[in-house]
Amino acid sequence: MDDTNFADRLTAQTRKTGNPLCLGLDPHLTLLPQFVREKTDRVKSIEQFLISYIDLIAKKIPAVKPQAAFFEQLGPKGMQLLFDVSEYARQQGLLVILDAKRSDIGSTAQAYAQAYLSRDTPFDAITLNPYLGMDSLSPFLEACQANGKGVFILVKTSNPGAKDFQDLALKKDAALYEEIATRLQGPCEALVGKSGWSSLGVVVGATYPEEAVRIRQILPKALFLVPGFGAQGASAQAALSAFEATSETYMGGVISSSRAIMFPTSPECRDDAEWKAGVEAGLEKAIQALSK
Amino acid sequence: MDDTNFADRLTAQTRKTGNPLCLGLDPHLTLLPQFVREKTDRVKSIEQFLISYIDLIAKKIPAVKPQAAFFEQLGPKGMQLLFDVSEYARQQGLLVILDAKRSDIGSTAQAYAQAYLSRDTPFDAITLNPYLGMDSLSPFLEACQANGKGVFILVKTSNPGAKDFQDLALKKDAALYEEIATRLQGPCEALVGKSGWSSLGVVVGATYPEEAVRIRQILPKALFLVPGFGAQGASAQAALSAFEATSETYMGGVISSSRAIMFPTSPECRDDAEWKAGVEAGLEKAIQALSK
Repeated sequence: MDDTNFADRLTAQTRKTGNPLCLGLDPHLTLLPQFVREKTDRVKSIEQFLISYIDLIAKKIPAVKPQAAFFEQLGPKGMQLLFDVSEYARQQGLLVILDAKRSDIGSTAQAYAQAYLSRDTPFDAITLNPYLGMDSLSPFLEACQANGKGVFILVKTSNPGAKDFQDLALKKDAALYEEIATRLQGPCEALVGKSGWSSLGVVVGATYPEEAVRIRQILPKALFLVPGFGAQGASAQAALSAFEATSETYMGGVISSSRAIMFPTSPECRDDAEWKAGVEAGLEKAIQALSK
Repeated sequence: MDDTNFADRLTAQTRKTGNPLCLGLDPHLTLLPQFVREKTDRVKSIEQFLISYIDLIAKKIPAVKPQAAFFEQLGPKGMQLLFDVSEYARQQGLLVILDAKRSDIGSTAQAYAQAYLSRDTPFDAITLNPYLGMDSLSPFLEACQANGKGVFILVKTSNPGAKDFQDLALKKDAALYEEIATRLQGPCEALVGKSGWSSLGVVVGATYPEEAVRIRQILPKALFLVPGFGAQGASAQAALSAFEATSETYMGGVISSSRAIMFPTSPECRDDAEWKAGVEAGLEKAIQALSK
């Protein structure tokens, strides 16, 4: 496994593909087309579907983001599937960001870091929830340093409820999300690679472009993982609000889209070719919106 | 599966056993005794170890708490093991609280709720991280209502880093953890059972007894899951600071201990009988400390 700095690998891939698009790998049971759901071996059928999808998108975008929940929902076989399709994606040249939003303390956080960021896993990075404090993040940051992996820490999420706690005004005259970003400054600096970007990234919803600009001021070198583009309604312009427009492409992280491109047809779709054509059209449109 | 209110089931179990002790099921790779680690089939060996442990503690305490991270660390086979040993614990009459600290939004949160709180899972409750906001908790609360399950939401965790964000002073003159507890009041009321306790519980570290008393004022009917007793150094008195002393036992949730009782011998221990004697001695001591 390539153990050079994650941020360097992601920025190289972004330059190579010319866009910062990251597509979700979300086997969403209620959205899967009929031609996938009607097969008797559900897990095998989903595996074939995900592999077809990876074949359609590989070489065109820098990264994919499997959502752990949809694999966990399939039971223990789903976890095997998560590792298998992530390994397949990696072999096709895609970086793999595991969206698992894990959070725990001490030896438990170490166990999660070992499970998902050790050298022999197919994952390049993982998403984390910071509520438990800086010590809960340390084992993951150590794995980044040692194994060339990355993390994306939730700062400002894309959902309406993000305001409930993340936006709370603190006595020290900052919102909670700003304080979390500020506490990440030191660890972010420590993981900056040759590219000038850091393997400590943050999750910032495309639905909150002004907050994204504020977080970019606090963390100029952090890679942003920006969900909410597409199905959640954010425009390319909003999603790119904290990205840097270079002559080649938009740098500064990845813009993630899951449902909109993976599920272009209705769940009743029985036609594999119709689904493929829909994916290709959606992919082209998204790449165009996110390219220079 | 019994779909009566989770809080009612937990309080009945606590009354029956006479103590509120909850023991971790944490196959912590570096702490497992030599006689477990030396076998060639690691997962099978850990399964036998966990079953021996469950046999030693069943009927004596109300609940167990498997820590997902230690199972996930074993790969996909570990997830099968998690379900299998949880089912075994349930069959021995123990309630099973899955410590997974999940957090996500929308359809992803629904997928997690489906994975762990649907009727056919062996889990009675799950731990959740609230940072993403109230809408991220809704799918789990709906599963509690529909399936007689419970949740324990992280409010004040037991680690030193809990102070980093959870204790931040808000402009509205409350700490962040107090505001989160306050926002949980309505949903907590909605899940109160016949026992007077709610299936919406909270995680409050034994290492912070004063904060526990404050959270009890805000959420008088919430069950508390209190980690940090034992290995993390908190006394029984500190752990019980927000519990109600009835004539029979201490009511108001569960006090959790993981490493201290499960691993009484050194990792070099080759003697199954020595380990069992250590578990029994530790268990008796803990039960005594937490009984009337």
